[in-house]
Amino acid sequence: MSRKRFDTHNCSIAGTLELVGDWWTLLVVREAFFGSRTFTQFLQNLGISRNILTDRLEKLVEADILEKHYPKAQSQRAQYILTHKGKALLPVLVSMMQWGDQWVNEAGGAPVKLSDLQTGEHLRTMQVETENLKKLDLDQLAITPGPGASTSTLKRFE
Amino acid sequence: MSRKRFDTHNCSIAGTLELVGDWWTLLVVREAFFGSRTFTQFLQNLGISRNILTDRLEKLVEADILEKHYPKAQSQRAQYILTHKGKALLPVLVSMMQWGDQWVNEAGGAPVKLSDLQTGEHLRTMQVETENLKKLDLDQLAITPGPGASTSTLKRFE
Repeated sequence: MSRKRFDTHNCSIAGTLELVGDWWTLLVVREAFFGSRTFTQFLQNLGISRNILTDRLEKLVEADILEKHYPKAQSQRAQYILTHKGKALLPVLVSMMQWGDQWVNEAGGAPVKLSDLQTGEHLRTMQVETENLKKLDLDQLAITPGPGASTSTLKRFE
Repeated sequence: MSRKRFDTHNCSIAGTLELVGDWWTLLVVREAFFGSRTFTQFLQNLGISRNILTDRLEKLVEADILEKHYPKAQSQRAQYILTHKGKALLPVLVSMMQWGDQWVNEAGGAPVKLSDLQTGEHLRTMQVETENLKKLDLDQLAITPGPGASTSTLKRFE
Protein backbone atom coordinates (compact mmCIF):
# COMPACT_ATOMS: atom_id res chain seq x y z
CA MET A 1 0.00 0.00 0.00
CA SER A 2 1.49 3.25 -1.14
CA ARG A 3 0.49 5.21 1.98
CA LYS A 4 3.15 3.26 3.83
CA ARG A 5 5.92 4.99 1.95
CA PHE A 6 5.00 8.45 3.12
CA ASP A 7 7.14 10.52 5.38
CA THR A 8 5.04 9.28 8.30
CA HIS A 9 7.15 6.19 8.02
CA ASN A 10 9.99 7.80 10.00
CA CYS A 11 8.09 7.02 13.18
CA SER A 12 7.92 3.91 15.32
CA ILE A 13 4.18 4.31 15.84
CA ALA A 14 3.62 4.24 12.07
CA GLY A 15 6.02 1.29 11.83
CA THR A 16 4.03 -0.59 14.45
CA LEU A 17 0.73 0.21 12.77
CA GLU A 18 2.11 -1.04 9.48
CA LEU A 19 2.48 -4.47 11.05
CA VAL A 20 -0.52 -4.64 13.36
CA GLY A 21 -2.61 -1.58 12.48
CA ASP A 22 -5.73 -3.31 11.38
CA TRP A 23 -8.74 -4.27 13.45
CA TRP A 24 -8.56 -8.00 12.71
CA THR A 25 -4.78 -8.25 12.82
CA LEU A 26 -4.60 -7.02 16.38
CA LEU A 27 -7.58 -9.15 17.42
CA VAL A 28 -5.79 -12.22 16.04
CA VAL A 29 -2.80 -11.25 18.20
CA ARG A 30 -5.16 -10.83 21.17
CA GLU A 31 -6.48 -14.35 20.57
CA ALA A 32 -2.93 -15.69 20.51
CA PHE A 33 -2.41 -14.01 23.91
CA PHE A 34 -5.64 -15.59 25.15
CA GLY A 35 -4.35 -19.02 24.14
CA SER A 36 -5.68 -19.75 20.65
CA ARG A 37 -3.24 -21.80 18.58
CA THR A 38 -5.01 -23.62 15.76
CA PHE A 39 -6.87 -22.13 12.81
CA THR A 40 -10.13 -23.51 14.21
CA GLN A 41 -9.58 -21.93 17.62
CA PHE A 42 -8.96 -18.51 16.08
CA LEU A 43 -11.98 -18.97 13.80
CA GLN A 44 -14.37 -19.87 16.61
CA ASN A 45 -13.14 -17.33 19.13
CA LEU A 46 -13.12 -14.42 16.68
CA GLY A 47 -16.21 -14.98 14.55
CA ILE A 48 -14.04 -14.01 11.58
CA SER A 49 -14.33 -15.26 7.98
CA ARG A 50 -11.92 -17.99 6.85
CA ASN A 51 -10.50 -15.75 4.11
CA ILE A 52 -9.70 -12.86 6.41
CA LEU A 53 -8.26 -15.17 9.06
CA THR A 54 -6.02 -16.93 6.51
CA ASP A 55 -4.78 -13.56 5.27
CA ARG A 56 -4.09 -12.13 8.73
CA LEU A 57 -2.34 -15.26 9.99
CA GLU A 58 -0.07 -15.23 6.93
CA LYS A 59 0.68 -11.56 7.41
CA LEU A 60 1.55 -12.13 11.07
CA VAL A 61 3.85 -15.05 10.23
CA GLU A 62 5.57 -12.89 7.58
CA ALA A 63 6.00 -10.11 10.14
CA ASP A 64 7.60 -12.62 12.54
CA ILE A 65 4.90 -12.01 15.17
CA LEU A 66 3.48 -15.54 14.93
CA GLU A 67 5.40 -18.67 14.05
CA LYS A 68 3.74 -21.54 12.21
CA HIS A 69 4.54 -24.77 13.97
CA TYR A 70 3.82 -28.26 12.70
CA PRO A 71 3.35 -30.85 15.46
CA LYS A 72 5.11 -34.15 14.81
CA ALA A 73 1.96 -36.23 15.01
CA GLN A 74 0.40 -36.05 11.56
CA SER A 75 -3.07 -36.07 13.05
CA GLN A 76 -2.46 -32.70 14.68
CA ARG A 77 -3.13 -29.35 13.02
CA ALA A 78 -0.59 -26.60 12.46
CA GLN A 79 -0.29 -24.20 15.36
CA TYR A 80 0.40 -20.47 15.39
CA ILE A 81 2.63 -19.52 18.30
CA LEU A 82 3.70 -16.04 19.41
CA THR A 83 7.38 -15.27 18.76
CA HIS A 84 9.48 -13.06 21.09
CA LYS A 85 8.54 -10.12 18.89
CA GLY A 86 4.88 -11.08 19.21
CA LYS A 87 5.03 -11.56 22.98
CA ALA A 88 6.62 -8.12 23.23
CA LEU A 89 3.28 -6.67 22.09
CA LEU A 90 1.82 -7.43 25.54
CA PRO A 91 2.22 -3.83 26.80
CA VAL A 92 0.45 -2.52 23.66
CA LEU A 93 -2.51 -4.85 24.18
CA VAL A 94 -2.73 -4.25 27.93
CA SER A 95 -2.58 -0.46 27.53
CA MET A 96 -5.43 -0.73 24.97
CA MET A 97 -7.38 -2.95 27.34
CA GLN A 98 -6.93 -0.53 30.23
CA TRP A 99 -7.95 2.46 28.09
CA GLY A 100 -11.01 0.54 26.87
CA ASP A 101 -11.92 -0.48 30.43
CA GLN A 102 -11.89 3.15 31.49
CA TRP A 103 -13.31 4.93 28.46
CA VAL A 104 -15.33 2.45 26.41
CA ASN A 105 -16.72 -0.13 28.83
CA GLU A 106 -16.91 2.21 31.81
CA ALA A 107 -20.61 1.50 32.43
CA GLY A 108 -20.58 -2.29 32.34
CA GLY A 109 -17.17 -2.80 33.90
CA ALA A 110 -14.18 -4.65 32.50
CA PRO A 111 -15.12 -7.78 30.49
CA VAL A 112 -11.83 -9.43 31.39
CA LYS A 113 -9.43 -9.02 34.33
CA LEU A 114 -5.72 -9.69 34.26
CA SER A 115 -3.83 -10.54 37.43
CA ASP A 116 -0.65 -12.17 38.69
CA LEU A 117 -1.18 -15.92 38.26
CA GLN A 118 0.97 -16.63 41.30
CA THR A 119 -0.31 -14.09 43.85
CA GLY A 120 -3.62 -12.90 42.41
CA GLU A 121 -2.47 -9.27 42.58
CA HIS A 122 -4.10 -6.86 40.15
CA LEU A 123 -2.14 -5.15 37.43
CA ARG A 124 -0.79 -1.66 37.86
CA THR A 125 -2.31 0.84 35.44
CA MET A 126 0.24 1.36 32.69
CA GLN A 127 1.55 4.86 32.49
CA VAL A 128 4.20 6.97 30.84
CA GLU A 129 6.87 7.74 33.42
CA THR A 130 10.58 8.29 33.98
CA GLU A 131 12.90 5.62 35.36
CA ASN A 132 12.19 7.15 38.79
CA LEU A 133 8.46 6.49 38.37
CA LYS A 134 7.57 10.14 37.91
CA LYS A 135 4.36 10.06 35.89
CA LEU A 136 4.49 12.29 32.80
CA ASP A 137 1.50 13.83 31.08
CA LEU A 138 1.58 15.04 27.51
CA ASP A 139 2.57 18.60 28.45
CA GLN A 140 5.51 17.29 30.51
CA LEU A 141 7.08 15.45 27.58
CA ALA A 142 9.90 16.71 25.40
CA ILE A 143 9.82 15.32 21.85
CA THR A 144 13.23 15.38 20.18
CA PRO A 145 14.75 13.68 17.11
CA GLY A 146 16.38 10.32 17.84
CA PRO A 147 19.34 8.59 16.14
CA GLY A 148 17.05 7.31 13.37
CA ALA A 149 15.47 10.68 12.56
CA SER A 150 15.04 11.57 8.89
CA THR A 151 15.76 15.07 7.58
CA SER A 152 12.14 16.10 7.93
CA THR A 153 11.86 14.68 11.44
CA LEU A 154 15.02 16.63 12.38
CA LYS A 155 13.56 19.80 10.89
CA ARG A 156 10.28 19.29 12.67
CA PHE A 157 11.45 18.62 16.22
CA GLU A 158 14.70 20.49 16.55
CA MET B 1 -19.66 -2.08 10.10
CA SER B 2 -21.25 -5.38 11.01
CA ARG B 3 -18.05 -6.97 12.30
CA LYS B 4 -18.31 -4.65 15.27
CA ARG B 5 -21.37 -6.43 16.58
CA PHE B 6 -19.67 -9.79 16.96
CA ASP B 7 -19.05 -11.40 20.27
CA THR B 8 -15.49 -10.01 20.14
CA HIS B 9 -17.14 -6.85 21.31
CA ASN B 10 -17.13 -8.03 24.93
CA CYS B 11 -13.50 -6.99 25.17
CA SER B 12 -11.86 -3.68 25.91
CA ILE B 13 -9.20 -4.24 23.27
CA ALA B 14 -11.89 -4.65 20.60
CA GLY B 15 -13.69 -1.61 22.01
CA THR B 16 -10.52 0.44 21.74
CA LEU B 17 -9.85 -0.77 18.20
CA GLU B 18 -13.39 0.16 17.22
CA LEU B 19 -12.56 3.78 18.03
CA VAL B 20 -8.93 4.03 16.96
CA GLY B 21 -8.19 0.75 15.15
CA ASP B 22 -7.35 2.18 11.79
CA TRP B 23 -3.96 3.21 10.46
CA TRP B 24 -4.89 6.80 9.72
CA THR B 25 -7.07 7.29 12.79
CA LEU B 26 -4.24 6.49 15.17
CA LEU B 27 -1.77 8.56 13.13
CA VAL B 28 -4.14 11.55 13.39
CA VAL B 29 -4.13 11.01 17.16
CA ARG B 30 -0.32 10.83 17.06
CA GLU B 31 -0.24 14.16 15.22
CA ALA B 32 -2.47 15.70 17.87
CA PHE B 33 0.03 14.49 20.50
CA PHE B 34 2.85 16.00 18.43
CA GLY B 35 1.08 19.36 18.47
CA SER B 36 -0.98 19.58 15.26
CA ARG B 37 -4.22 21.50 15.76
CA THR B 38 -5.55 22.83 12.46
CA PHE B 39 -6.71 20.89 9.41
CA THR B 40 -3.74 22.25 7.45
CA GLN B 41 -1.24 21.12 10.08
CA PHE B 42 -2.62 17.57 10.10
CA LEU B 43 -2.69 17.59 6.29
CA GLN B 44 0.92 18.68 5.91
CA ASN B 45 2.39 16.53 8.67
CA LEU B 46 0.58 13.35 7.63
CA GLY B 47 0.68 13.45 3.81
CA ILE B 48 -2.94 12.27 3.94
CA SER B 49 -5.72 13.05 1.45
CA ARG B 50 -8.24 15.76 2.38
CA ASN B 51 -11.13 13.29 2.19
CA ILE B 52 -9.60 10.75 4.53
CA LEU B 53 -8.47 13.45 6.95
CA THR B 54 -11.95 15.03 7.05
CA ASP B 55 -13.47 11.61 7.72
CA ARG B 56 -11.01 10.66 10.47
CA LEU B 57 -11.24 14.02 12.25
CA GLU B 58 -15.05 13.76 12.27
CA LYS B 59 -14.86 10.22 13.60
CA LEU B 60 -12.47 11.29 16.37
CA VAL B 61 -14.71 14.22 17.36
CA GLU B 62 -17.73 11.85 17.45
CA ALA B 63 -15.75 9.44 19.63
CA ASP B 64 -14.94 12.32 22.03
CA ILE B 65 -11.20 11.87 21.47
CA LEU B 66 -10.77 15.25 19.76
CA GLU B 67 -12.82 18.36 20.42
CA LYS B 68 -13.48 20.88 17.65
CA HIS B 69 -12.75 24.33 18.94
CA TYR B 70 -13.56 27.63 17.17
CA PRO B 71 -11.21 30.48 18.11
CA LYS B 72 -12.98 33.79 18.76
CA ALA B 73 -11.09 35.68 16.08
CA GLN B 74 -12.93 34.98 12.83
CA SER B 75 -9.68 34.98 10.93
CA GLN B 76 -8.52 31.87 12.75
CA ARG B 77 -9.22 28.31 11.64
CA ALA B 78 -11.01 25.68 13.71
CA GLN B 79 -8.74 23.66 15.94
CA TYR B 80 -8.86 20.02 16.96
CA ILE B 81 -7.80 19.57 20.57
CA LEU B 82 -7.32 16.31 22.50
CA THR B 83 -9.98 15.69 25.16
CA HIS B 84 -9.24 13.94 28.49
CA LYS B 85 -10.27 10.70 26.81
CA GLY B 86 -7.88 11.48 23.93
CA LYS B 87 -4.98 12.39 26.20
CA ALA B 88 -5.51 9.12 28.04
CA LEU B 89 -4.35 7.33 24.87
CA LEU B 90 -0.77 8.41 25.63
CA PRO B 91 0.22 5.01 27.13
CA VAL B 92 -1.15 3.24 24.03
CA LEU B 93 0.89 5.43 21.68
CA VAL B 94 4.05 5.27 23.78
CA SER B 95 3.86 1.47 24.12
CA MET B 96 3.51 1.27 20.30
CA MET B 97 6.43 3.64 19.86
CA GLN B 98 8.63 1.60 22.20
CA TRP B 99 7.71 -1.67 20.49
CA GLY B 100 8.43 -0.10 17.10
CA ASP B 101 11.76 1.29 18.33
CA GLN B 102 12.80 -2.18 19.40
CA TRP B 103 11.33 -4.41 16.73
CA VAL B 104 10.75 -2.32 13.60
CA ASN B 105 13.37 0.44 13.58
CA GLU B 106 16.00 -1.52 15.47
CA ALA B 107 18.66 -0.98 12.80
CA GLY B 108 18.35 2.78 12.30
CA GLY B 109 17.56 3.68 15.89
CA ALA B 110 14.52 5.53 17.23
CA PRO B 111 13.27 8.32 14.92
CA VAL B 112 11.91 10.28 17.88
CA LYS B 113 12.87 10.37 21.56
CA LEU B 114 10.57 11.25 24.43
CA SER B 115 11.94 12.59 27.70
CA ASP B 116 10.94 14.54 30.80
CA LEU B 117 10.68 18.17 29.67
CA GLN B 118 11.80 19.38 33.09
CA THR B 119 14.74 17.08 33.87
CA GLY B 120 15.63 15.54 30.51
CA GLU B 121 15.31 12.03 31.97
CA HIS B 122 14.49 9.25 29.54
CA LEU B 123 11.26 7.34 29.71
CA ARG B 124 11.00 4.03 31.46
CA THR B 125 10.12 1.15 29.14
CA MET B 126 6.44 0.48 29.64
CA GLN B 127 5.71 -2.96 31.00
CA VAL B 128 2.95 -5.08 32.39
CA GLU B 129 3.45 -5.37 36.14
CA THR B 130 1.74 -5.62 39.52
CA GLU B 131 1.28 -2.66 41.86
CA ASN B 132 4.56 -3.80 43.50
CA LEU B 133 6.38 -3.43 40.16
CA LYS B 134 6.78 -7.15 39.64
CA LYS B 135 7.06 -7.52 35.87
CA LEU B 136 4.67 -10.08 34.45
CA ASP B 137 5.14 -12.00 31.21
CA LEU B 138 2.32 -13.62 29.33
CA ASP B 139 2.70 -16.98 31.11
CA GLN B 140 2.52 -15.25 34.52
CA LEU B 141 -0.87 -13.69 33.83
CA ALA B 142 -4.22 -15.03 34.98
CA ILE B 143 -7.09 -14.08 32.65
CA THR B 144 -10.45 -14.15 34.41
CA PRO B 145 -13.91 -12.73 33.62
CA GLY B 146 -14.49 -9.21 34.93
CA PRO B 147 -17.73 -7.52 36.09
CA GLY B 148 -18.65 -6.72 32.48
CA ALA B 149 -18.17 -10.26 31.16
CA SER B 150 -20.81 -11.61 28.76
CA THR B 151 -22.08 -15.18 29.01
CA SER B 152 -19.58 -16.38 26.43
CA THR B 153 -16.67 -14.57 28.11
CA LEU B 154 -17.69 -16.20 31.41
CA LYS B 155 -17.81 -19.60 29.76
CA ARG B 156 -14.47 -19.08 28.12
CA PHE B 157 -12.38 -17.91 31.05
CA GLU B 158 -13.94 -19.53 34.10
